[in-house]
Amino acid sequence: MNDTAQLRGVLSPVVTPFKADLSPDAERLAAQCRWLLTQDCGLAVFGTNSEANSLSLDERLVLLDHLVGAGIDTARMMPGTGCCALSDTVRMTAHAVKLGCAGALMLPPFYYKGVSDEGLFRSYAEVIERVGDERLRIYLYHIPQVSGVPISLGLIERLLKAYPGTVAGVKDSSGNWDNTKAMLDAFPGWGVFSGNELVLLENMRNGGVGCISATANVNPAAIHRLYAGWQSPQAERMQAEVNEIRQFIGQFPVIPALKRIVSHYAGDPAWNRLRPPLVELDEAQARSLLDGLAERNFAMPGLATQRGAAD
Amino acid sequence: MNDTAQLRGVLSPVVTPFKADLSPDAERLAAQCRWLLTQDCGLAVFGTNSEANSLSLDERLVLLDHLVGAGIDTARMMPGTGCCALSDTVRMTAHAVKLGCAGALMLPPFYYKGVSDEGLFRSYAEVIERVGDERLRIYLYHIPQVSGVPISLGLIERLLKAYPGTVAGVKDSSGNWDNTKAMLDAFPGWGVFSGNELVLLENMRNGGVGCISATANVNPAAIHRLYAGWQSPQAERMQAEVNEIRQFIGQFPVIPALKRIVSHYAGDPAWNRLRPPLVELDEAQARSLLDGLAERNFAMPGLATQRGAAD
Repeated sequence: MNDTAQLRGVLSPVVTPFKADLSPDAERLAAQCRWLLTQDCGLAVFGTNSEANSLSLDERLVLLDHLVGAGIDTARMMPGTGCCALSDTVRMTAHAVKLGCAGALMLPPFYYKGVSDEGLFRSYAEVIERVGDERLRIYLYHIPQVSGVPISLGLIERLLKAYPGTVAGVKDSSGNWDNTKAMLDAFPGWGVFSGNELVLLENMRNGGVGCISATANVNPAAIHRLYAGWQSPQAERMQAEVNEIRQFIGQFPVIPALKRIVSHYAGDPAWNRLRPPLVELDEAQARSLLDGLAERNFAMPGLATQRGAAD
Repeated sequence: MNDTAQLRGVLSPVVTPFKADLSPDAERLAAQCRWLLTQDCGLAVFGTNSEANSLSLDERLVLLDHLVGAGIDTARMMPGTGCCALSDTVRMTAHAVKLGCAGALMLPPFYYKGVSDEGLFRSYAEVIERVGDERLRIYLYHIPQVSGVPISLGLIERLLKAYPGTVAGVKDSSGNWDNTKAMLDAFPGWGVFSGNELVLLENMRNGGVGCISATANVNPAAIHRLYAGWQSPQAERMQAEVNEIRQFIGQFPVIPALKRIVSHYAGDPAWNRLRPPLVELDEAQARSLLDGLAERNFAMPGLATQRGAAD
């Protein structure tokens, strides 16, 4: 099922900066994407960690246009395009494909719970048919603890049978390695991304293609080294090193923590804004987070020089 | 906190009809709303049972414009306006207020889970401030088993303190009477709607203002009689009668069942369409549903004559 353009490696669900009025800050987002690319990190913009579901469809379309207009390489982009409404998912996905994005990370419709595989199959099938573009590469987004709507193996099997070239892979953010392993075993050669780097080595050893991870926003280079060197003698040590950072950051509310880290290492207070319902870390949390990273000799080289427009 | 315009009584989360291409059918929706008004039933259009979260914002705005243009009484309307994205909720709510809708039934932002009351307070506060219209009357929508984001008593207390006239009430769809009772006890005189008619009598006896119920789509007159007669000697019997229908329909997937019932009693196959991820009842389910209703002498008087345009 693979083709030469298949997305592989480490991707970041890029955090979305906001202006003081909470509107998205396209300039800063483009700067962050440029920095991530210098770290060999692909761009899963509009993911969960991007607060994408706190953005309107129009806001996402405008941001994507801006990124492409700013010269960000669409061959490295897998924007999130799955919305509650079929009509929104079609519009967002069609736009991403038209712009040349290499993949679309697609949540199932996530308001209604307990829906059937038949209903989810129809959702994805309608999107594929309505987008009607052979360049479309869908990555199914399995994150049941947030979406409330799991992607079952049976659903994947049915979609792969109906749309073998189009349904290109999955991001398994369940945090359940047994589930990732079951996908790898059931669909060899398929594009299975783990949802974090804690199991990146295991994923690669079992035929996976990389990871799409929140912490790739702040620790991309080390995670990429592990990806690139998974067959090297240093792989276990590299895995342990990225785990150390991931597990430390994971003690904090993750999206606020990521934004505080970017804000701190970029020397840019504007990055510390979140859209409701998310809230920034309090100062005690932030101090604990930043002190802990300093103790671990954490750095984000090159970040400050990529700073966006003044706020 | 009450004022003379406060919404009371029985409201229906009006089911949304679709054309063959799954676009919303504004004509049929207007006809259904007209019929519901003849049954003394208010219009909570764009609720959960309306498949509102399977509609784009633009689709909802166009439908609302059509209903108002068709002369549907905005004093009887409480459209759902709560979206994942703050910007969408503001736009939908502002439009509803501008058109004169008596209330706005507002889900919390429902993608991110485990969010704090502080974050939810900021969400609602931003919407209120940005809409900036003293006519705004928000009904908080507590349906944690679907939204995944509960509305706590502490959040309500904080919102009522900050926006006492604007935060007008709640729809408690938790199905947990203890929770409804706690709201009634904590906020006397506030606009507490139960999320179904099974506890309508209890709700009224404890100071509630009515119910907003899925089954008001098909059994509005009987539920309204209970509402209007809750102090009468027949109240317990009327409660038992509406319970019988509710509990029978509740054995089936509710939105597909409601659409099948409307389709059948209107003699209009177009009403049986759902947007993915929801699917229609299979024929065995439908037969069981319709036979059971016939055995119970169920009827929807006047419905067929209100039929919309031919499909």
